[in-house]
Amino acid sequence: MEHKIGLIGCGTVGQGLLQILHDKKGYLRDAFGFEARVVAISDKLKGTLLAPEGLDIPTVLGLLGAGKGLAEYPKATPAQVEPLDPLDMIERTDADIIAEMTYTDIQTAEPATGYIKKALRLGKNVVTSNKGPAALHYREIQDLARKNGLQFRIEGTVMSGTPVFHLAEAGLAGNAIREVKGILNGTTNFILSKMETDGMDYAPALALAQKLGYAEADPTADVEGYDALAKVVILSNVLLGASLKTTDVARQGISAITKADVEAAKAQGFRYKLIGQAKKGADGTVTASVSPQKLPLSDPLAGVMGAQNALSLETDMMGKVTIQGAGAGKLETGFAILSDILAVHRC
Amino acid sequence: MEHKIGLIGCGTVGQGLLQILHDKKGYLRDAFGFEARVVAISDKLKGTLLAPEGLDIPTVLGLLGAGKGLAEYPKATPAQVEPLDPLDMIERTDADIIAEMTYTDIQTAEPATGYIKKALRLGKNVVTSNKGPAALHYREIQDLARKNGLQFRIEGTVMSGTPVFHLAEAGLAGNAIREVKGILNGTTNFILSKMETDGMDYAPALALAQKLGYAEADPTADVEGYDALAKVVILSNVLLGASLKTTDVARQGISAITKADVEAAKAQGFRYKLIGQAKKGADGTVTASVSPQKLPLSDPLAGVMGAQNALSLETDMMGKVTIQGAGAGKLETGFAILSDILAVHRC
Repeated sequence: MEHKIGLIGCGTVGQGLLQILHDKKGYLRDAFGFEARVVAISDKLKGTLLAPEGLDIPTVLGLLGAGKGLAEYPKATPAQVEPLDPLDMIERTDADIIAEMTYTDIQTAEPATGYIKKALRLGKNVVTSNKGPAALHYREIQDLARKNGLQFRIEGTVMSGTPVFHLAEAGLAGNAIREVKGILNGTTNFILSKMETDGMDYAPALALAQKLGYAEADPTADVEGYDALAKVVILSNVLLGASLKTTDVARQGISAITKADVEAAKAQGFRYKLIGQAKKGADGTVTASVSPQKLPLSDPLAGVMGAQNALSLETDMMGKVTIQGAGAGKLETGFAILSDILAVHRC
Repeated sequence: MEHKIGLIGCGTVGQGLLQILHDKKGYLRDAFGFEARVVAISDKLKGTLLAPEGLDIPTVLGLLGAGKGLAEYPKATPAQVEPLDPLDMIERTDADIIAEMTYTDIQTAEPATGYIKKALRLGKNVVTSNKGPAALHYREIQDLARKNGLQFRIEGTVMSGTPVFHLAEAGLAGNAIREVKGILNGTTNFILSKMETDGMDYAPALALAQKLGYAEADPTADVEGYDALAKVVILSNVLLGASLKTTDVARQGISAITKADVEAAKAQGFRYKLIGQAKKGADGTVTASVSPQKLPLSDPLAGVMGAQNALSLETDMMGKVTIQGAGAGKLETGFAILSDILAVHRC
């Protein structure tokens, strides 16, 4: 079956997705009977491309890789390149799947939430890597999708393409999940790992993370736990059935952790990790937090080093199940989007 | 939708499945629209029960728990209790799913393979926790299932209900898997863990494992790596597309590992684990082995202690993804069967 795909946002993740759709074309067709035609791209910086016949991915990646805009897409090809707001693009395209990959605004979840709702109202499935809509409006958007017989999928919002929601939905289906506990931010895990294994203090470890591209120039969202907090809210609401807001979650980052703290913990057989956690109480209430915790080395999360992410799910039948993998990356988050598109394809 | 389920083998795993189907009845109906009627049980020791209207699970579990046979199922209930060979049971029942849960014979894979093929030929889906048919005849059985538009599912054959095949099939779908590497036997991992953390030598650690019920009176299948070998063959053939036989896999157990070996490794920053591994070469050839390996503590498998199992999958898009969880258990393997039944229900 062929799917028509429209992209909103074509930065790192969008370009990762395009690369995968191109490189894996034959494999995806043979293995899953899946074919994709990319029919629209709308990006605030790079412009708009509407190509109902399907656009040529190498040409698009070549333009973007050379720092050019979509307006320079060859005119010989039947495509339209006038700038369009994503809301208008959604209206004009006949895509059956919209991949929303714009940047997270955790305060408002806009403009992404507006794009997603419009797409669902117009009968299009939506997959997204944007934490805003998933953290602030998951239930409402999911209800809208169900009402319209569509899917709203969010694998890429937590741990990039390392399967968390797919894991709960397929492999662990039937289990009641009582608690989730994870290393959900690669930047802070990289910094804490360096502080322990290389004996660095916080400031030089952060500087190294910035130099290597793991941390932003303004590292607040990572090191103060805001990024992990958004993910904890998503996990709480999707996997534990809670209705938490971001303000319901206690949050403490790692910027006050010193080399001495890390060494003292190590001497006691413990290891500092920034842990996002959510637990369902006997009365069904979910309490959640983000905080540095000293884990015993026997905890499956204690061995997760560097920029890796991991999540433990405490279940009623399977006990604790832990998955570890990449938490970010162009190909990894591009794959998260693909895995959601393939889930739409399967059902 | 209601499924009619027939059980072949009603030992620990079968009773675990029955318990789950009973305890989770309401949840499974509400969450997935799944309803199950258990219409047949055939067990070499416990007898036969044919109950087209559905049998009463608490009554069956009560009988078996009291050491009684299925022949004592109350006669007032419309059910037939004359002894029937599983092959005849398959013919007489109108079950749409057969759960095959007899013991593994890794030399012949019989009589399970005969049961499975007969069920598939008669239009019934098959789910199994039996390693024999999956290790010796996976491709042939899978082809038979496909030809008949049916499913043959084997989640319980590796790591009990900790999702391995579901993970590859849903969450990681689209990735090419290049290598799998895992701790696939809980008994040997328990023994090696005790040798390191409690400074025990091999023989007392084995004796403790036997006392706690982790190891059999004859521990050969576990400690000499035969159990892990069967799982490596299954993983190779299912996830890497190989056609390995059990004789193609180099095998070495842990019985020659001494406390001194474990301590020497620890002093160098390594940890002994019995590792099952399979790798696809550049030419597509898969080579596989089971052997004790000294892992650096940075390996995600190094931190897996006690009777836990774990598997790392090396993929082209997601890099290394590792899943850790229970490797055995009544409820855990019963859940593996349920997860496969739910997969049949979904599709």
